[in-house]
Amino acid sequence: MFATSLGDDGAELRPLEPWQAEEFLAHMDRGREFVGEHIALADAVHDLDSARAFLRAYADKAASDTGRLYGIWSDGTLVGGVLLRTMDVAAGTAEAGCWLEPSAAGRGLITRACRLLIDWVVEVRGLHRVEWLASSENAPSIAVARRLGMTREGVLRENYPHRGVRTDTEVWAVLAPEWRAARGVPSGVRGA
Amino acid sequence: MFATSLGDDGAELRPLEPWQAEEFLAHMDRGREFVGEHIALADAVHDLDSARAFLRAYADKAASDTGRLYGIWSDGTLVGGVLLRTMDVAAGTAEAGCWLEPSAAGRGLITRACRLLIDWVVEVRGLHRVEWLASSENAPSIAVARRLGMTREGVLRENYPHRGVRTDTEVWAVLAPEWRAARGVPSGVRGA
Amino acid sequence: MFATSLGDDGAELRPLEPWQAEEFLAHMDRGREFVGEHIALADAVHDLDSARAFLRAYADKAASDTGRLYGIWSDGTLVGGVLLRTMDVAAGTAEAGCWLEPSAAGRGLITRACRLLIDWVVEVRGLHRVEWLASSENAPSIAVARRLGMTREGVLRENYPHRGVRTDTEVWAVLAPEWRAARGVPSGVRGA
Amino acid sequence: MFATSLGDDGAELRPLEPWQAEEFLAHMDRGREFVGEHIALADAVHDLDSARAFLRAYADKAASDTGRLYGIWSDGTLVGGVLLRTMDVAAGTAEAGCWLEPSAAGRGLITRACRLLIDWVVEVRGLHRVEWLASSENAPSIAVARRLGMTREGVLRENYPHRGVRTDTEVWAVLAPEWRAARGVPSGVRGA
Amino acid sequence: MFATSLGDDGAELRPLEPWQAEEFLAHMDRGREFVGEHIALADAVHDLDSARAFLRAYADKAASDTGRLYGIWSDGTLVGGVLLRTMDVAAGTAEAGCWLEPSAAGRGLITRACRLLIDWVVEVRGLHRVEWLASSENAPSIAVARRLGMTREGVLRENYPHRGVRTDTEVWAVLAPEWRAARGVPSGVRGA
Amino acid sequence: MFATSLGDDGAELRPLEPWQAEEFLAHMDRGREFVGEHIALADAVHDLDSARAFLRAYADKAASDTGRLYGIWSDGTLVGGVLLRTMDVAAGTAEAGCWLEPSAAGRGLITRACRLLIDWVVEVRGLHRVEWLASSENAPSIAVARRLGMTREGVLRENYPHRGVRTDTEVWAVLAPEWRAARGVPSGVRGA
Repeated sequence: MFATSLGDDGAELRPLEPWQAEEFLAHMDRGREFVGEHIALADAVHDLDSARAFLRAYADKAASDTGRLYGIWSDGTLVGGVLLRTMDVAAGTAEAGCWLEPSAAGRGLITRACRLLIDWVVEVRGLHRVEWLASSENAPSIAVARRLGMTREGVLRENYPHRGVRTDTEVWAVLAPEWRAARGVPSGVRGA
Repeated sequence: MFATSLGDDGAELRPLEPWQAEEFLAHMDRGREFVGEHIALADAVHDLDSARAFLRAYADKAASDTGRLYGIWSDGTLVGGVLLRTMDVAAGTAEAGCWLEPSAAGRGLITRACRLLIDWVVEVRGLHRVEWLASSENAPSIAVARRLGMTREGVLRENYPHRGVRTDTEVWAVLAPEWRAARGVPSGVRGA
Repeated sequence: MFATSLGDDGAELRPLEPWQAEEFLAHMDRGREFVGEHIALADAVHDLDSARAFLRAYADKAASDTGRLYGIWSDGTLVGGVLLRTMDVAAGTAEAGCWLEPSAAGRGLITRACRLLIDWVVEVRGLHRVEWLASSENAPSIAVARRLGMTREGVLRENYPHRGVRTDTEVWAVLAPEWRAARGVPSGVRGA
Repeated sequence: MFATSLGDDGAELRPLEPWQAEEFLAHMDRGREFVGEHIALADAVHDLDSARAFLRAYADKAASDTGRLYGIWSDGTLVGGVLLRTMDVAAGTAEAGCWLEPSAAGRGLITRACRLLIDWVVEVRGLHRVEWLASSENAPSIAVARRLGMTREGVLRENYPHRGVRTDTEVWAVLAPEWRAARGVPSGVRGA
Repeated sequence: MFATSLGDDGAELRPLEPWQAEEFLAHMDRGREFVGEHIALADAVHDLDSARAFLRAYADKAASDTGRLYGIWSDGTLVGGVLLRTMDVAAGTAEAGCWLEPSAAGRGLITRACRLLIDWVVEVRGLHRVEWLASSENAPSIAVARRLGMTREGVLRENYPHRGVRTDTEVWAVLAPEWRAARGVPSGVRGA
Repeated sequence: MFATSLGDDGAELRPLEPWQAEEFLAHMDRGREFVGEHIALADAVHDLDSARAFLRAYADKAASDTGRLYGIWSDGTLVGGVLLRTMDVAAGTAEAGCWLEPSAAGRGLITRACRLLIDWVVEVRGLHRVEWLASSENAPSIAVARRLGMTREGVLRENYPHRGVRTDTEVWAVLAPEWRAARGVPSGVRGA
């Protein structure tokens, strides 16, 4: 029922809900190798039940206002998504993240979707700080953080065990005033 | 993050979530008399806690795919909404409903929003039957059912106790083939 | 511990509880073809676990006062039952239903049991409206509604998917004053 | 809907359910002093909410088959009850108990009701052992145990704190073969 | 992180938590025959899942302050344990119990561990009565009760079904003043 | 029942459980100003109910193996504590923390307690990484991290809203090999 254009190439951001588990699984099957190189999502979503459980967990986060999940569709095909893995309204903080299947890489889809998401977090919800955690070996993810104008705040050493290896996790973040300044929004102005 | 235009007058359908409880309550306060004339919603939403609980109940229904709730905004103000009070995907049935504050009445907003909602129910979700229950004294609601091309299937006598009086409940419904025929969609074609 | 006579032929209405799952399943196995022709109960109760789960669901409804289930025994054999599928004390409404294995059909057992049940709903619990939903193809069930003095209020078209076919659902109901008038109970008199 | 006669004086055993909380509270108010002398029930049921909670707890025990509660009515007035405080079907054991308001004392109502209850426990449910715990100062309760043919198995010293004093708890019990022998039921015969 | 010496032979009492399920299962495997002769524990803990579930149940009892479980280690090997199967702080009562693998029998480990446990129950927690239930055929367990200075209060006849046979259950108990007198603690003195 | 010495001055680490809520609250009342300067704990524990709820939350974390809480007693008085705010056994990570009332400051109690805690996390539980988060204005807490041999990995800017001000959060951490090297434990050796 809802779709927000991500630009001139027909890509869209849409809600991604539990009833779409089959579509989500088919997408993950296409992107499993690529998506799974640096993050656990691909391994966690391996059949219809686990796909439904994953989407259900995020629907429950939405209901309790502690997280969100949205899909990116390109030419009518689900090709990736962005999410708020955690969201603490009282503390004014959230952690954003993303995934993409390889056929859709290289077009800036994630960056465009994240701009929408962070606009919502900062301007609509009034949170103060959006984090981005990425493996230090995940160059594309780090490039997104940089393009979003985030600051590299530190490296959590050997933090993330993935497929048998512990990798460092870089912590990037952008603060609301920084976001507004970069977007050209005068401070103090908050829309809905 | 999401908004679907309801027409040229700037009205929009948007998600309506628990974090919007204050906005929802203010809207209900404006429309309490009007909304409450025929349905229990106005009485159920009387302070911030009950507003949040109502929205949370529908967020939980969305998570379990058993209901939905969307708001109608006009010039940036929440003025009403449409909902799926129940939704039984296995049985292929749903019950739709609506509410509106008086300032927004007379413009066909509900009918327009319901068309979007039923399109989604029928074309995207593939349900077979959408019901509409209204007090036999609620002429505007019955007029919506008629405008949506629904058929009056019966009257549940003295079914609904509201503010001390039991009223009859009219049952209207539209079936998927009827909906598609009226919308000019060739049968057998289902989009997303 | 409890049994209420249904007449001179030794038939009785008794509580039907989760610990009786084996007896319930054996009964359902005898009546599966007959019971399952029009309603989902027979398909839902197909082994000991599902029999226990079904009875447990109704025991939970009894605990929360939102439904009831009773069995009909004939010569010591469980042959059918009546139930309140839903019960909304605040709204003053309930939906009654029944099932029977074929060996016990044709003796008016269901009608007798329903009279006891509706007497309780109307006279003891003070509800105002008792509904009865039946497939328009389920002639015996509709005959019961008629014998109970119910009024046919409408037909929910293609409402009920059962074994691959969608059937119409007839809605019948009796209101408390009607029930009392037919039973010869002066209005305003309510026993326990 | 159900009532089992306790004898020629019109006393009856009936289900006692959460919706009867008002009637239960009124009864407890009449018997508070008397009932509360030796057991905690009177103190636990002090207003409508606690009455409902108590009855709900036993309805939940019935649903999970771990306890039961029944009321005794005399001339249409609730005057007491019997219960299975615990019930362990796998272990074949249960603990029975009772309470009575003073107006109904001295007529053997509890003994008669307990006979029905233990018959059900032993003959219908097939449990092996029924316990009865009573304060050593609660002569009427101990007299019931004796009249039921139970054996005094021990005394739990200073076991039960009640209104500021710790009292001894006598443990009485009857085994299924003893119960059947005393009732004249040939061993090996079990009805429903 | 915690260990309390049980004497000069290096035996220790330690917390026993869900994460130790593997160690607990290996211990139970070694002692299965011996432990299972009189109590259900050995049959209940038969694989890793059931071992974890058993320990988790006691961790939940600790969280709600309704039970406790501790392990006995000898030379670094888990060889048995003591527990509070139930604990009712408001009533001032608890039921203690134990188990041991055969290699550790005959050294008084259980008695020593129980002394620590009952000291905590009586002196730290201020409970009044500690029960000990044992099969009348479980001579070692009864010997422990006797060594702990408990009094035999009764025999629950044919109370405990175990591996196809119903055995009598002896009830032993010690009261706080008795415990203190036997331990040489002046009444009225309570430490932490 | 359990206490581990923290050194020659009589200080001890002990379990801290929900039943100790009164003692915990009294301690927090003594240290409220001091404890509350940098962390939310003091504000969260303001009466008996909130004290019990806080301890209960950690008892539940212990039961699910996702956190731990221990108290520090000095001369029999609860003066502070250490905790694992989070613990992810599958990921091999945990976040440690602490608090202290002012009377006990300056004696190295926290450092000593943390050494015990991290030894358990690393050597007994086999986790790989222990984090320490502290406000950049909380010099004593940062000093502890440094004394524990942790490395400063980054600064989460304006991360923590406390009493109306957002402060930076420093992230420190120690990895298992580093911990063992500093403690003189040969790598590859893991005790219990």
